[in-house]
Amino acid sequence: MESFKVSVYRKEHFNAAHRLHNDLLSIEENKAIFGKCNNINYHGHNYELIIKVAGEIDAVTGYVIDMKILSDLIKTEIIERFDHKNLNLDIEEFKHINPTAENIAWVIYTILRPKIEIKYELKIILYETERNYVEYPS
Amino acid sequence: MESFKVSVYRKEHFNAAHRLHNDLLSIEENKAIFGKCNNINYHGHNYELIIKVAGEIDAVTGYVIDMKILSDLIKTEIIERFDHKNLNLDIEEFKHINPTAENIAWVIYTILRPKIEIKYELKIILYETERNYVEYPS
Amino acid sequence: MESFKVSVYRKEHFNAAHRLHNDLLSIEENKAIFGKCNNINYHGHNYELIIKVAGEIDAVTGYVIDMKILSDLIKTEIIERFDHKNLNLDIEEFKHINPTAENIAWVIYTILRPKIEIKYELKIILYETERNYVEYPS
Amino acid sequence: MESFKVSVYRKEHFNAAHRLHNDLLSIEENKAIFGKCNNINYHGHNYELIIKVAGEIDAVTGYVIDMKILSDLIKTEIIERFDHKNLNLDIEEFKHINPTAENIAWVIYTILRPKIEIKYELKIILYETERNYVEYPS
Amino acid sequence: MESFKVSVYRKEHFNAAHRLHNDLLSIEENKAIFGKCNNINYHGHNYELIIKVAGEIDAVTGYVIDMKILSDLIKTEIIERFDHKNLNLDIEEFKHINPTAENIAWVIYTILRPKIEIKYELKIILYETERNYVEYPS
Amino acid sequence: MESFKVSVYRKEHFNAAHRLHNDLLSIEENKAIFGKCNNINYHGHNYELIIKVAGEIDAVTGYVIDMKILSDLIKTEIIERFDHKNLNLDIEEFKHINPTAENIAWVIYTILRPKIEIKYELKIILYETERNYVEYPS
Repeated sequence: MESFKVSVYRKEHFNAAHRLHNDLLSIEENKAIFGKCNNINYHGHNYELIIKVAGEIDAVTGYVIDMKILSDLIKTEIIERFDHKNLNLDIEEFKHINPTAENIAWVIYTILRPKIEIKYELKIILYETERNYVEYPS
Repeated sequence: MESFKVSVYRKEHFNAAHRLHNDLLSIEENKAIFGKCNNINYHGHNYELIIKVAGEIDAVTGYVIDMKILSDLIKTEIIERFDHKNLNLDIEEFKHINPTAENIAWVIYTILRPKIEIKYELKIILYETERNYVEYPS
Repeated sequence: MESFKVSVYRKEHFNAAHRLHNDLLSIEENKAIFGKCNNINYHGHNYELIIKVAGEIDAVTGYVIDMKILSDLIKTEIIERFDHKNLNLDIEEFKHINPTAENIAWVIYTILRPKIEIKYELKIILYETERNYVEYPS
Repeated sequence: MESFKVSVYRKEHFNAAHRLHNDLLSIEENKAIFGKCNNINYHGHNYELIIKVAGEIDAVTGYVIDMKILSDLIKTEIIERFDHKNLNLDIEEFKHINPTAENIAWVIYTILRPKIEIKYELKIILYETERNYVEYPS
Repeated sequence: MESFKVSVYRKEHFNAAHRLHNDLLSIEENKAIFGKCNNINYHGHNYELIIKVAGEIDAVTGYVIDMKILSDLIKTEIIERFDHKNLNLDIEEFKHINPTAENIAWVIYTILRPKIEIKYELKIILYETERNYVEYPS
Repeated sequence: MESFKVSVYRKEHFNAAHRLHNDLLSIEENKAIFGKCNNINYHGHNYELIIKVAGEIDAVTGYVIDMKILSDLIKTEIIERFDHKNLNLDIEEFKHINPTAENIAWVIYTILRPKIEIKYELKIILYETERNYVEYPS
C-alpha cells in the first residue's frame, strides 16, 4: 500500500489568450458547444501550472529532484513559450488542437515528458481559473 | 502506471448551519464526543465543494465533460438544496445521518453518482474550514 | 501625508450560525429584504476576523503591540464567545441587533475598543465569505 | 479620527484578453514600453474585481447596501460586458484607452459611479494577477 | 475502482529556520548543490503541514477519526517540537539528515505513523513555500 | 474626498531566518518579552512583501509606474539582499535593530524611499505569516 517514493510539486504561472474552437465544426455548432469561450476575438486567463514529479529521495542531496533545475526546465520549455501569448495563434501545438484546459495539460505533458528522466513519474495540474482545474494523467 | 484519462475539477460553495448529534446517544455522550460542535442552537460553515470527474478527452470538444453542464448539475442538485440551509432540519438526507464533513461528502456522492454517466470516475472533496477537509472516495 | 505609525494586523476565525431578521418587520417584509438569509432554521459561515491596531513602534520591543497579547485578547473576548455559536440565540449583543456582517463588525469593535489602550487606532475587518467582507470604521 | 461609516466589499471576476498598445506611438516605442504585454495577438488574465462601497449602516436592514443588489449591478454593468471578451476589440471604452490595470479600474469606476447613490463612497480594486493589483481612487 | 474509505485532512503550520547541508560533502560541493539554501547562517520558512488520514467512517460518530484528537496529536508530536526552532540545531532527527522538504515530510511520517492506528492510511503533505511542496508517501 | 490618483501594488517574497532580541535587555527580559521568538538558534518565515506606489496615471503609458521597473527595483534592493538570509547576522540594517515585522517594514521603506521619485506615495505591507502582517506608514 505504501511506497518509499516522495512527490514534489512546483508551481509556476503564465498569462495567455485563447479561444475554444473546432475547425471541423460549423460556426453554429462551435457557438452551441463553446458559448462565450468561442468569442472570435479571444479572451484570456492567468494559468497556474503545477508540475508533480515523483521518485525516490537521493541519499546525497536529500532531494527527489533539484527544484531549481525543475523550475528552470518549466520556465524554458513552457513559461517562456506560453506566457503573454495567444495559444491559438502563437503556439505551434495548438494549430490543430483546441486549447481547452484538458488539451493544454496534455500538450504540456508531452513537451516535458521527454525532458524528465523516465525513472520519475510526471503529472500536470493546470488551473484555468480558481474554480476550474484539470490533472493529467488522472 | 500512466493512464490516458484526465481529471477535471469544479469548485462551488454553500453556506449552511449544522450541529453534530447522534440521537441514539445520551445528551452527555453527545457532549463528550462532539464538544462545541454539539451546540443545541447550531453553528455554521462556508463549505467549499470540489467535484472531480475523471474520463477520456472527447475528440470533438476537447473536454472530458462540459464544465458548464457539470456546474449546472452541482448547482441544481446540491447548491440550491443545501445553500443557506440548516443541514439537520432542512435536508431530508440528514434526518437520520449526522452531518459530519465525512457524511456530507458521502451524501453528495450518492446524490450526484446517478446523475453522472458511469464511464466517469467521481470524487467529492469538501472543505468544512480552511484547515479541515475530506475526500470521498479516498 | 506620511505618519510614523505602523499598523499591525492579526487574523483569527470563528464559525457560527445566524439568520438575518428584524423583529419590527412583518414575515413578508423580512423575506423580501433578506431572502434566503432569513431562513427560520438559520444558516452559517466561517467568519475570518482581522483586527488592525495602529500606533508607534515601541523602542524597547520593536513592537507596536505584542501580537501574542492581542491574539489572546481577541480569543478571550470574541472567539471563545462567538465560535460554534448561534449569533441570534447565544450572543447577548444580537438579541436586538440583526447580525449582518456590518453589525457584527460594529459589535466586535464596541467589545474590543475599551480593552485596547486609547493611544491605538482600532479597525475591524470581517470576512463573511471569501467574496463578501466589511470594515469598521470605514 | 473615527467615523461611523462601514465599508462593504464585494468580489467578482471576469476573464479577458487584452494587449497594451498606444496608437500614437511607433511600433518600436510600443515594444520598448510594453514588452511582451504588447504581443499583437493578445494575451489574457483572470481579473479579480473588488468593489468597495462605504456608508452608514441602515437602521432597518443592518446593511450599508444590499450585497445582492450591489452584486447584480456589478454583474449587469461590468461582468456581462467584460467577461470572456477582448478588451481592446470588444469594449467601446478601450477603443481609445490603453487597457492597463490602472485604466481598467478607472473605466469601471466611471461606469459604476453614476449607478451608485452619491451618499456612498466608491472604490475599485482590480487584481490583474495575484502579484499585481491596483486601486482607484488611491 | 471505488472504495468505501474517506480521507480526512488536517492543516497545521510551524515556522522554522534551516540550512541545506551534507556533512559528507566539501564546502564547495555543498555550495554547488544547495546554492543560497546552504547559507551558513540559515534562512527560514512558514511550513504548512497537511496530515491526511484515510479510513472507514465510524457508524456512531460519523467521523473517520476525531479531528480534535488528530489536531492535538500533530500539535504535541510535531508543532510543539518544530515550531520556532532551528531544524538543523534544535531537532534531534536532523542531526544527521539534511532538512530538505522531502526529508522533513519523511521524518514527520516516521514520528506520526506509530501514534496512529495501523488501520488508517497516513500521508504527509508539506508546503515549504506557496510554490514548492512535497507529499510522502507519493 | 476623491483623488485622481491610482495605487498600484506589487507582491514579492523572500525567505529568511531571524530571532527577536534586544541587546540592551537581560537574557531573562528577552525571554519574557519575546518568548519562543527569542530562540538563540533562530527560526524563520516566508515573508510576503507588498509594495504600494500611488500616483497619477501617465497619459502616454497608462501606467502609474512601470510594474517591471518597480519589480526589478524591489528585487535588486530587497529580495537579493534579504532572501535566504539570516536577518540578524547577514543584514547590516539589523545589526542594531530588532527584526520584528514592524521594524523590517520600516527598514524596507527607508531603503526604497530614496529610489522612488518623491511624487509617488510609498507604502510597505509585510506578511510575516498568513495571520500576522504589518503596514508602514499606517
